[in-house]
Amino acid sequence: MVEEIRLLKLGGSIVTDKGGGGGIDHARLAAIAREIAERGDAHLVIVHGAGSCGHPEAQEYRIQEGVDLQNRAGIAITHEAVAGLNRSVVAALRAEGVDAVGIHPLAACHADNGQLLSCEHQSIDQLVRLGITPVLHGDVVMDTSRGACIISGDQIIRYLAQALGAGRVGLATDVPGVLDRGAVVPVITREHVKRLSIGCSGNTDVTGGMKGKIEELLKLADSGIESHIFHVSHIADFLDGKEHGGTIVRR
Amino acid sequence: MVEEIRLLKLGGSIVTDKGGGGGIDHARLAAIAREIAERGDAHLVIVHGAGSCGHPEAQEYRIQEGVDLQNRAGIAITHEAVAGLNRSVVAALRAEGVDAVGIHPLAACHADNGQLLSCEHQSIDQLVRLGITPVLHGDVVMDTSRGACIISGDQIIRYLAQALGAGRVGLATDVPGVLDRGAVVPVITREHVKRLSIGCSGNTDVTGGMKGKIEELLKLADSGIESHIFHVSHIADFLDGKEHGGTIVRR
Repeated sequence: MVEEIRLLKLGGSIVTDKGGGGGIDHARLAAIAREIAERGDAHLVIVHGAGSCGHPEAQEYRIQEGVDLQNRAGIAITHEAVAGLNRSVVAALRAEGVDAVGIHPLAACHADNGQLLSCEHQSIDQLVRLGITPVLHGDVVMDTSRGACIISGDQIIRYLAQALGAGRVGLATDVPGVLDRGAVVPVITREHVKRLSIGCSGNTDVTGGMKGKIEELLKLADSGIESHIFHVSHIADFLDGKEHGGTIVRR
Repeated sequence: MVEEIRLLKLGGSIVTDKGGGGGIDHARLAAIAREIAERGDAHLVIVHGAGSCGHPEAQEYRIQEGVDLQNRAGIAITHEAVAGLNRSVVAALRAEGVDAVGIHPLAACHADNGQLLSCEHQSIDQLVRLGITPVLHGDVVMDTSRGACIISGDQIIRYLAQALGAGRVGLATDVPGVLDRGAVVPVITREHVKRLSIGCSGNTDVTGGMKGKIEELLKLADSGIESHIFHVSHIADFLDGKEHGGTIVRR
């Protein structure tokens, strides 16, 4: 039997103090790592956002306006910021016994016009099937027409979910789900998304905040893969297939 | 004018204390970084060996015999050892003003039956043409038939030289060139390589030592790309196109 692959996104705002000083939330990472470790071999791929590590650097060097000789220094500086966060996430998982390994999109992926075009997913697929948990992240990625661009964790989630044929896709965030006028929207489809008034994130986020996230997940829904957005406190529920009180994005 | 791309391999034995305690040679790395920095925008790709970081781990977990559920833990452990060395090499270069960025083959490449099959070289090409120096290394790489395997820095050099159409390929080592009965062999071709008596490295090296290196370089020569093997003290001469007193491998 081929076990289904699960994808778990850890929002940038839950692994770092996004609004504030730019620190990594090591205590929360350890708690998340314990919940994942307790569930054993999970056939799990983890993707985390950049949060306060990487977004400020990407803004300072105007990566999203394209990269040339003038602002090329921003590539390595932005990448080092998010790669450092990735090492902390991997270290937290390994400390709890999860056989995790970091995979940097700058090395593995290529983009054009701000859209992720390719990713070395065959290696990721093999790692997962051996019981190893690859940990990817939002990153600066080389881009054929723009020089380089920022690829969000949400874009990576969508690409990998389709490339790996994922069975379950979950996005853990610092809110209980997608909110419309203060209430969790239990189900979102492309048909009724226009009726929702979803606010933009007030924090530094060069990748589009909640609206960008939902657009990626609707594309995923178009290809028949359901995704779940829930509060970080419900990661265990998501992994166990239980009710998480959040939002399901489906076709 | 498109400037030619140069590839420089830093042997594992010159960046680490390969025979001994397993340390990284930070003083030598700093000296090499200064020589590279002094030459400005170099259109340079650097690949370093694993030396004492990675080879012992790869041997302990018998990575070269294939990887399955029994020894899968060796993948992340071996990778972390060489990725740590890579961070030191990148940090040494950046400290001297080289805009370097680490690229890990585990993320970027795929292999079959111990041979490197693919690598995300489009991103590496774009980085170099922006004046950024990608720094790769010998690494554990996922392998279709073996699960995973060790890909040497020499294999990566050969693959990238061909994929990027490199103009000059240099391998800096701890010996003055390829030695035959104590004397440097100035030129090696496939025709007269059988007459040479080249010894194996006495140190821990799961990737074939000097014989493996020459086999990769002869394949490169077959495709019309010359390569140079010289002592680490002649890196500046190689970069400047001067006489390095070592060995040239050609068709």
